[in-house]
Amino acid sequence: MAAEDVPQDGRPPTARGRRTRDQMVEAAAELMQARGIAATGVSDVLSATGTGKSQLYHHFGDKRGLVLAVIDHQLARVLAAQPRLAPDADGDVAAWADDLLVLHRGGDGPLSCPLGVLSGQVDDDPVLREHQAAAFARWRDALAGLVARGRRAGAVTAAGDTVVLAGALLAALQGGLMLARLARDVAPLEIALDAALLHLGVLRPSSSDGSPRYERGA
Amino acid sequence: MAAEDVPQDGRPPTARGRRTRDQMVEAAAELMQARGIAATGVSDVLSATGTGKSQLYHHFGDKRGLVLAVIDHQLARVLAAQPRLAPDADGDVAAWADDLLVLHRGGDGPLSCPLGVLSGQVDDDPVLREHQAAAFARWRDALAGLVARGRRAGAVTAAGDTVVLAGALLAALQGGLMLARLARDVAPLEIALDAALLHLGVLRPSSSDGSPRYERGA
Repeated sequence: MAAEDVPQDGRPPTARGRRTRDQMVEAAAELMQARGIAATGVSDVLSATGTGKSQLYHHFGDKRGLVLAVIDHQLARVLAAQPRLAPDADGDVAAWADDLLVLHRGGDGPLSCPLGVLSGQVDDDPVLREHQAAAFARWRDALAGLVARGRRAGAVTAAGDTVVLAGALLAALQGGLMLARLARDVAPLEIALDAALLHLGVLRPSSSDGSPRYERGA
Repeated sequence: MAAEDVPQDGRPPTARGRRTRDQMVEAAAELMQARGIAATGVSDVLSATGTGKSQLYHHFGDKRGLVLAVIDHQLARVLAAQPRLAPDADGDVAAWADDLLVLHRGGDGPLSCPLGVLSGQVDDDPVLREHQAAAFARWRDALAGLVARGRRAGAVTAAGDTVVLAGALLAALQGGLMLARLARDVAPLEIALDAALLHLGVLRPSSSDGSPRYERGA
């Protein structure tokens, strides 16, 4: 068995199977982000990928199984876009926020969270809703790691449980992003993140003009 | 012309016309909050109210006009549920947050914002999206009034523009509510609001056990 054929995490045992599954998940994620879950039919995913119904049901069981895989996929995308959440990254929380603002700034910025856009659409299905809640909990826990590293580095001065602090940071990000998306303006996100960083007691280690961007009580 | 027949704000000139219009808006708001805007047809609103298509088009022009009225209606509901946002209310920001937590706490708490649930559904229509953004801006401005009153009363110690401070508070509320709704648990909302109040430097004037619930840096 070639190395690429080693099964991982219940994914298909063959490289070809994994490629097909990945293609279907990516196509479904794109369609569901653009049109919504309800408006994305299984047949849309099949036409987009040139696959057959039997393959989809083989890999996912049903449409719900496909949505569960889409939630996992969107969480992975979100975490990959925030390399400072990796366990071996440094504790520069202000740089993490700056990275997000760079990502969303500008007229063509997404101003949208690939995971967050699904939240309102999984409310009626407890299985999907709990899976979505668990995805946000994993994101929050990765943020708690960043806050803990920031505290060890002296960048975070607020006391309190890092998971609680990270929960407040994630709420600010999601709420700020919702308001920014409506306004087609990154400012509400920037305001929300600045407040969350002030709450963490994040002092910017250094900045180009010598003055801290985040200053407690500013 | 009887007093109740005086036209207000472009609403129908007769009491009967206003009643019919209000019934249609309330039914549409309820259906759209439960099922979503796209899944709510004009015919659903007509059956729910026993009205005719000509009345609906007379009052709203088209479905978009109906959704615009629903957004206004949901904002009015949201503001009515927060009496501490009235211009003549006091500046007790902590009590405002407590009121919200009481509203959402418990297994049967709504954990949902009548206005916020529409945000993801108006993204493709610039007219609806801008109307929704304007509704949130009105809510934020009412919160800025509360923050200003809180500052005059000495309850808010954070410096900075009240509209900016209110924007961070609204983002925390919306993001916290989204996470709380997913988890079917008020805790993420409480965490988000506590952080936002700490950011405002809100100190609780008094509490039953003598210790402030919100203490800066706690």
